[in-house]
Order: sequence, then structure tokens, then C-alpha cells
Amino acid sequence: MNLTLFTDYALRVLIYAANQPAGKLVQVDEIARVYGISRNHLTKAVHRLGQVGYLETVRGRGGGMRLAMPASDIRIGDVVRAMEDDFAVVGCFANDQCVLLPACRLRRALGEAVDAFLDTLNQYTLADIATSAASVFRAT
Amino acid sequence: MNLTLFTDYALRVLIYAANQPAGKLVQVDEIARVYGISRNHLTKAVHRLGQVGYLETVRGRGGGMRLAMPASDIRIGDVVRAMEDDFAVVGCFANDQCVLLPACRLRRALGEAVDAFLDTLNQYTLADIATSAASVFRAT
Repeated sequence: MNLTLFTDYALRVLIYAANQPAGKLVQVDEIARVYGISRNHLTKAVHRLGQVGYLETVRGRGGGMRLAMPASDIRIGDVVRAMEDDFAVVGCFANDQCVLLPACRLRRALGEAVDAFLDTLNQYTLADIATSAASVFRAT
Repeated sequence: MNLTLFTDYALRVLIYAANQPAGKLVQVDEIARVYGISRNHLTKAVHRLGQVGYLETVRGRGGGMRLAMPASDIRIGDVVRAMEDDFAVVGCFANDQCVLLPACRLRRALGEAVDAFLDTLNQYTLADIATSAASVFRAT
């Protein structure tokens, strides 16, 4: 059971952005360097975070990204829901033609379980998560 | 966000076995045919279900498998926990050397969210899930 690398990277971008002085723009290269991860993958995550309104991006020389809203307004479950394309959990949610589908109670149980997963994450905001990382970024 | 095909198939095997008359042995071929899925994948799931005590398997001619305990004693969250090798959720749980690791609160939040996911599934037993499938198996 896991989230996509895409969601993982999106969360790391937000944590990094939340640890910057208010309004400061940061670059993908900087985030890739700090975490030691692929710039290409990060770029896609940043693009999606911009589309869904968590990041504000400024193009061109001197450009970069910053949070588009206070970290305390960004709930982690909402971020995960926005980043994960696929909450299919098991095959029948997607394109599998499971014979059980018309009568399956497992599907309902799994749907409730996903909601519980996201509700639990929504008890945390980006501000809750990001503050613990401050000491790490100061050291890099 | 999804479970492995392995877990998916294990759940289908248990649902099928729970719909058999008490004590009746069923074969992997039969289950593969009913669901229209790979015999090889099913065999691996059946093997694990036997190892962890949910299925009793009888070898040889006339052999097969059956539930090793009442369906009402098998909790779905426990099955998922037993079948999923990897509750890594994001890379840092596995072998990724995320720079945040020493101070990361996200990791704790995700751990709590996985627990909420499994706790919700544990509100359902195999008996709850399997009865809804009875009409489907009668029709095949």
C-alpha cells in the first residue's frame, strides 16, 4: 500500500516552500539539490501544485515558486487527494471486470477506509508538518 | 493509492471460499475460472493465505482449500495487513534517504492514516463482505 512518488515529491516541495521566509521565491533546482532527487519529477509535481492552487509560480529570470496560501490553511489529506490520480485501491475500482462488482460490499468498505485515511491526514496542516523540518533545512 | 494485486486476489479467494458449503474443498482452477483471472497469481495468494492461517489446504487428488476458521472471525483489515508486504506509503518509509527523516512529522501522520485505513476495514468481517456475493456465485 503506497502513494505515488508524485505525491511524495509534492509533499516535499510544500514542506520546503513552507520553510522559506514569507514571499521568498524558491527554484526547483534548489529543492532537487536539498533532497537529492530528480529535477524532472519535481517539476511535474510543482506544475500540478500550481494548477490546484497550492503554489504560486513566477516565470523567467529571478522566478520561482512560493506557497499561494498560508501553510496553516493547507490540509495534508486534501493535498494527497489532489495529487493521487488513482484511488482505485483494488482492480475493480478501475477497469477490471470483476464478477463480484454488482454485489460487492468490499468495494464499499475500501471506499470508507480511504476516507478514513484522508480524514486522518486532514487533521494535520502543512504548518504542523513543516515546522519540524526547519532545523534540517537550516543545516543544509 | 492502491493495494497490490496480490491482496486483491487474496480477498477474492476468501470471498469465494466463504460462499462454499461448510467443509467443501475448492480448487484454484475453479476460482480462476469464475473470476477470469490468472491461475498463477491466485496460487501465490492461496499459498500465503494458508501460511497465515486463513485457509486450510489439502494436497493431492480430490484436494483443494477451505476456510480454516469461520468467516465471521476473519477481519478484512487483518487480511490486508497480512497480505501487503509494504506499508511504506512514501519513499522515506523504505530505503529512500530523505533528508527530512530525522525530524519528519509527515511520516507519523501517514502512519496514523494507515492505521485508520486498516481499523475501518476491521469493522468488516469476511462474513459481512462475502454474503453479498452469494447471488453472483449462484449465477456462474
